[in-house]
Amino acid sequence: MTTTQSSLYELGIDILKQVGGVTYDAPLNSLQEIAPDLARLTVEFGYGEIMSRKGLDLQTRQLCTVAALAAMANAQPQLRYHIAGALNVGCEPSSIIEAILLSAVYAGFPATGNGVFAAKEVFQNRGLLFHPVTRPAGGDRYERGMAALLRGYIVAPRY
Amino acid sequence: MTTTQSSLYELGIDILKQVGGVTYDAPLNSLQEIAPDLARLTVEFGYGEIMSRKGLDLQTRQLCTVAALAAMANAQPQLRYHIAGALNVGCEPSSIIEAILLSAVYAGFPATGNGVFAAKEVFQNRGLLFHPVTRPAGGDRYERGMAALLRGYIVAPRY
Amino acid sequence: MTTTQSSLYELGIDILKQVGGVTYDAPLNSLQEIAPDLARLTVEFGYGEIMSRKGLDLQTRQLCTVAALAAMANAQPQLRYHIAGALNVGCEPSSIIEAILLSAVYAGFPATGNGVFAAKEVFQNRGLLFHPVTRPAGGDRYERGMAALLRGYIVAPRY
Amino acid sequence: MTTTQSSLYELGIDILKQVGGVTYDAPLNSLQEIAPDLARLTVEFGYGEIMSRKGLDLQTRQLCTVAALAAMANAQPQLRYHIAGALNVGCEPSSIIEAILLSAVYAGFPATGNGVFAAKEVFQNRGLLFHPVTRPAGGDRYERGMAALLRGYIVAPRY
Amino acid sequence: MTTTQSSLYELGIDILKQVGGVTYDAPLNSLQEIAPDLARLTVEFGYGEIMSRKGLDLQTRQLCTVAALAAMANAQPQLRYHIAGALNVGCEPSSIIEAILLSAVYAGFPATGNGVFAAKEVFQNRGLLFHPVTRPAGGDRYERGMAALLRGYIVAPRY
Amino acid sequence: MTTTQSSLYELGIDILKQVGGVTYDAPLNSLQEIAPDLARLTVEFGYGEIMSRKGLDLQTRQLCTVAALAAMANAQPQLRYHIAGALNVGCEPSSIIEAILLSAVYAGFPATGNGVFAAKEVFQNRGLLFHPVTRPAGGDRYERGMAALLRGYIVAPRY
Repeated sequence: MTTTQSSLYELGIDILKQVGGVTYDAPLNSLQEIAPDLARLTVEFGYGEIMSRKGLDLQTRQLCTVAALAAMANAQPQLRYHIAGALNVGCEPSSIIEAILLSAVYAGFPATGNGVFAAKEVFQNRGLLFHPVTRPAGGDRYERGMAALLRGYIVAPRY
Repeated sequence: MTTTQSSLYELGIDILKQVGGVTYDAPLNSLQEIAPDLARLTVEFGYGEIMSRKGLDLQTRQLCTVAALAAMANAQPQLRYHIAGALNVGCEPSSIIEAILLSAVYAGFPATGNGVFAAKEVFQNRGLLFHPVTRPAGGDRYERGMAALLRGYIVAPRY
Repeated sequence: MTTTQSSLYELGIDILKQVGGVTYDAPLNSLQEIAPDLARLTVEFGYGEIMSRKGLDLQTRQLCTVAALAAMANAQPQLRYHIAGALNVGCEPSSIIEAILLSAVYAGFPATGNGVFAAKEVFQNRGLLFHPVTRPAGGDRYERGMAALLRGYIVAPRY
Repeated sequence: MTTTQSSLYELGIDILKQVGGVTYDAPLNSLQEIAPDLARLTVEFGYGEIMSRKGLDLQTRQLCTVAALAAMANAQPQLRYHIAGALNVGCEPSSIIEAILLSAVYAGFPATGNGVFAAKEVFQNRGLLFHPVTRPAGGDRYERGMAALLRGYIVAPRY
Repeated sequence: MTTTQSSLYELGIDILKQVGGVTYDAPLNSLQEIAPDLARLTVEFGYGEIMSRKGLDLQTRQLCTVAALAAMANAQPQLRYHIAGALNVGCEPSSIIEAILLSAVYAGFPATGNGVFAAKEVFQNRGLLFHPVTRPAGGDRYERGMAALLRGYIVAPRY
Repeated sequence: MTTTQSSLYELGIDILKQVGGVTYDAPLNSLQEIAPDLARLTVEFGYGEIMSRKGLDLQTRQLCTVAALAAMANAQPQLRYHIAGALNVGCEPSSIIEAILLSAVYAGFPATGNGVFAAKEVFQNRGLLFHPVTRPAGGDRYERGMAALLRGYIVAPRY
């Protein structure tokens, strides 16, 4: 079976619009005069082939993207873009912060700090009021209660 | 408010059991004779403080962890551990592959290939039969139909 | 203008055959049972879109790829594959070593050493006899003569 | 055989002038007051030992350097310097863009995008008019014709 | 034995004050409104658990931190913070430069150059007059004399 | 002033013997047949120019090197070599572990775990009996006492 390349471009643009919001084509335009093929491939491959895949809903996909870009720690503009993208597809601000906080374990505090500041910048640019939920040191009473219940219990893996 | 450190350790162990499965304490044991404090901090900080947080359910948390470790591309043992962990908390094998495939866009094909082979190894070790769903080039008919419907449509961000 | 996706796949396969040699499809086959779409995208995007581009001849393209993978220092299997690929498209073994040695300046000696050992392994697997040209410390007489001639001379940039 | 260190310095300066152009000593000067030995070693080791090597012509060497720095994605000032250096030794602007585009395959789109924007900045600072050649999706007619010719054909490796 | 989490926080703050100096809480404050738990964990884990450990004196610990952040090359704000921290705990400016220069061997000149410029910025912000000791090319007479004495001599390892 | 390149080589070999111990030339020999100039530059630049510098004693230099290689997380053979080197120049095994543990803060637990396992391997190969000192959670009584004493106290920076 063959499909036309142009339908792939169209599919990519449709996903890109969901992630990029009203200014979805700003990155494409800034690539246009220096590397138009990179703009085209961003749409066809990045969005048309990868971000449009099923198997993960778009919110989970954006959270995974944010988690990875925060951990990589060398792509701040793209991290800010995908934090905004996560908001655009309906992720909670707090979920975005949680996805970034994970990197404290596997990529270190500098990556996490810089990731969190990227989120702060994006939230502020949108005038988004964000009230972080502080967790008491060591887990709260409820969690410790759950811990007691869960002790010795192992979730049966499905596979 | 003060909570005891030992309750944090217990909370961490409970989460670790869910992620690590029946051999959850293997990494801890191998650290024990060389750096026991690192074993303790893995439990208290890694699991007690971070992986036990609310705001992301445990499945999404594992998918984000897999996505990030695949993209970082320098922690293969930990990637295999968390791929297994994702299965342990109930993630679909196909969702794990999807989380890894994302890295083709933001970390490159070597990272993605090595990540996918890590998953293959974990799946095989479990005797897990995995039937990947192949997507036809350019998106299938349904997707192209959806693309036509979605064209020009931008999801209203909630923020 | 629309082109079919299948022609892109064919173009990619043709380039891949030049780079991968007689066992060009080994990486594709090992991806097939775990992530067939990644195999397809390796061909369509990696080779059909990028490695098939004009503007750099295939030898220069392979040398740049080797230089970059050596500097990234986290993709040894892919580095070995592209060192073999550089030989396949006709690069001199000594040029490949030179492309790796560059990383001593911008990525450090561990990256360079691991890159050079990857080349050693590939060369040995092919039974390739390699006689490295040793350069005397500080440049030889000819170079120092050239240095004297060149002193104070700046190549006129074309741009 | 012994050669004096000073002749190595002179050789390095000669290469550095070719790469760095009229302001070749700007980086050296800015290092002078904080780490003069790093300035000296940049010349002696970086240029006198490595960039002056034979086996790769200076243009290919610069393209490999640009490809690697773009892929490493954590050295933007040095990437800009070596993009300018590639122009200084006579590389075509389009070849520089091609060397950067490779990183889309092995280092991901964020690295590529940031690399391309670095080139855009360097080109603009020089008032260089750059007309990128857009390649149609899926390869043009000529390429598809070549693909037909090449099909099933494997370049005989020289080694 | 159980200790309270609050004593860990207090211990962390005490170390953080030594490293961070009079404005030690600036990073904590900027995290407060976006991720207060990350601020808490920076104190409890980063300083209370790790930086407060014995086995390395605080100066050596800061030099190791500076060496590592310079080599990682993707955490410039944190590198500047810990260069200042190294000064705060009494490290010589020249020792800090030396710790950064090491990265020329294992992480490459771009990392080293960017690290040295970070130090330059921190030193200048403090009005610190720094007179780098230039080492003549190839080692001075004394070193060469020592080299003659040391030739063939291997330090007996203690282990 | 000019010094001969050969004296630089001799100086480098003398330092390399101290770091590398009785098998100090093993890495050089394995480079000899593939890239002899890289072997020479390892000695002249790596050891003759950088590792021989004054300003840091050799033990601190090795600890900084270990800390950085552990944090970089992509050079395991070199990390093992320099862990052995740290022992060779007289560092305590516990100090080496401490230098690696730092990376838990700025590079994440995978880097730290892999670094600690590298140390375990080196220690075992030497038959070195290592008894890690476990620190109780939250700091022991003495530390908490010191914390009380130190509270509100800021070390006067010397600069």
